[in-house]
Amino acid sequence: MGRLLVALDLLGIFVFAIEGAMAGKAGQFDILGVLVLSFATSLGGGIVRDLLIGCRPVAAVSDWRYASVAFTGGALVFMMQAYLGHIPSTLLVVLDALGLALCAVAGAEKALAFGIHPTIAVLMGAITGVGGGCVRDMLMSRSPAVLHRDIYAVAAIFGAAVMIAGQRRLGLKPSLASFAGGLACFGLRLVAVWRDWQLPQLG
Amino acid sequence: MGRLLVALDLLGIFVFAIEGAMAGKAGQFDILGVLVLSFATSLGGGIVRDLLIGCRPVAAVSDWRYASVAFTGGALVFMMQAYLGHIPSTLLVVLDALGLALCAVAGAEKALAFGIHPTIAVLMGAITGVGGGCVRDMLMSRSPAVLHRDIYAVAAIFGAAVMIAGQRRLGLKPSLASFAGGLACFGLRLVAVWRDWQLPQLG
Amino acid sequence: MGRLLVALDLLGIFVFAIEGAMAGKAGQFDILGVLVLSFATSLGGGIVRDLLIGCRPVAAVSDWRYASVAFTGGALVFMMQAYLGHIPSTLLVVLDALGLALCAVAGAEKALAFGIHPTIAVLMGAITGVGGGCVRDMLMSRSPAVLHRDIYAVAAIFGAAVMIAGQRRLGLKPSLASFAGGLACFGLRLVAVWRDWQLPQLG
Repeated sequence: MGRLLVALDLLGIFVFAIEGAMAGKAGQFDILGVLVLSFATSLGGGIVRDLLIGCRPVAAVSDWRYASVAFTGGALVFMMQAYLGHIPSTLLVVLDALGLALCAVAGAEKALAFGIHPTIAVLMGAITGVGGGCVRDMLMSRSPAVLHRDIYAVAAIFGAAVMIAGQRRLGLKPSLASFAGGLACFGLRLVAVWRDWQLPQLG
Repeated sequence: MGRLLVALDLLGIFVFAIEGAMAGKAGQFDILGVLVLSFATSLGGGIVRDLLIGCRPVAAVSDWRYASVAFTGGALVFMMQAYLGHIPSTLLVVLDALGLALCAVAGAEKALAFGIHPTIAVLMGAITGVGGGCVRDMLMSRSPAVLHRDIYAVAAIFGAAVMIAGQRRLGLKPSLASFAGGLACFGLRLVAVWRDWQLPQLG
Repeated sequence: MGRLLVALDLLGIFVFAIEGAMAGKAGQFDILGVLVLSFATSLGGGIVRDLLIGCRPVAAVSDWRYASVAFTGGALVFMMQAYLGHIPSTLLVVLDALGLALCAVAGAEKALAFGIHPTIAVLMGAITGVGGGCVRDMLMSRSPAVLHRDIYAVAAIFGAAVMIAGQRRLGLKPSLASFAGGLACFGLRLVAVWRDWQLPQLG
């Protein structure tokens, strides 16, 4: 991956690590549990993707920067505890959408680089974006929220699909296709929150 | 794997995908969640087996047919919603036993092909058969049913053991050993449902 | 790994298998579920470590001794049911601390042997020690206890760090560094239980 992509990937992980720590703080976890939730929320999606596409050892283990960024995000929540209540929830939603977009696009690109079929690579991008949140929810003993409500995984799928279609069908430069995919995911997610769009349930 | 085995494997996946979608419909999942449950229920066992035996990338990711069959099964449940209530539960039990038999035998064969010890290959067959249901239950935030009641995993173990013993001890042709193993699993499962056999609990 | 290390590793697995079976007995699992909990509790941490560091197939599958020891531990709980109530809880705590120390040190050593960065190898040791208990808790549909209370994972981290620092910084012989690391983990865990030390929670 290029240096820009790595930087963006680490930024997405940082955002998710903060969210994981905040979930742990709310859920009666001790300090170790909070750090584990930071790690699992921010790196869980990429770990699952790496296991599935056959990247070994997984990047979260072979590259020490990933764990460092994850734990830094978690530690920041410790140190900033007094101020967390003052962060506007709108900012959290925007940062989360940014993290989702970065992880979805970076995840799909990595799958392509490992020779995975483009359709499946879209799924791998989505798993990279939402997998960490699923692992976090399961560590908290609840069914993953992403399976029940909100346009969240769909935004990740959309962004990864736009990126791959731009690169493979329209012949865009990789960096431009990635930017378009990220923007598509980010935009759809924010509009969905703003308009409270929901997927239908069956029955 | 031979073409017949692949076809049978895909049939088993199709049956489990329908069951996964029906569980998602019953459990307040949205459309995306239902498709994820189809995927996880039908492919989760094989994914866990592939990770454990070291097949990379896992078949569910490297071969687009698996995901296609899984999502087709899920989508079928969407389209047939109005009729699902009319499917006799006996038919569901028989189809499920068929899916279990197919996955257990195909899973054990794949483990053997990867050089795994025959005893462990029996376990890998059982994991292929019941792993997807465990993943589904955990995504639904409940303890896997297969660990609490019914002769279900035991039927998968029995079928895989018959297949491997037939091939390795009795020198049967692989296709005949597979057939015998599948029949053993299918038969034990159906008799167990009919007679309401249960494993003992401790204490 | 040397023969002594393998023997110690198998001893740790045996202890954890007994604990897993006892948890299953308490939790309304049937006989199969109890054996699965033995397997998952004793081998789950090592399986997760092997998947992350890229050891394939995972040792629990490629080496039949691991599963044998796990199931022997589970079966022992079946046969000794009448006597389980008479085991002093102090003995269980000491044996568990022993299992934790053995798994943490052996796990960190294996990560080093696979070329993982020493800091991450400490984490891999901790995952080897506590991962099985987490998998057990999740199979029982509850949030992993290790994330909420007790000095448990911290003891595993401490032991793995002592072992690696001894080997890499102090230039101790591997066997001596391992012994020091195991003793550090075992000692910290027992003192923490004795003094009822807890990590702070946030907020």
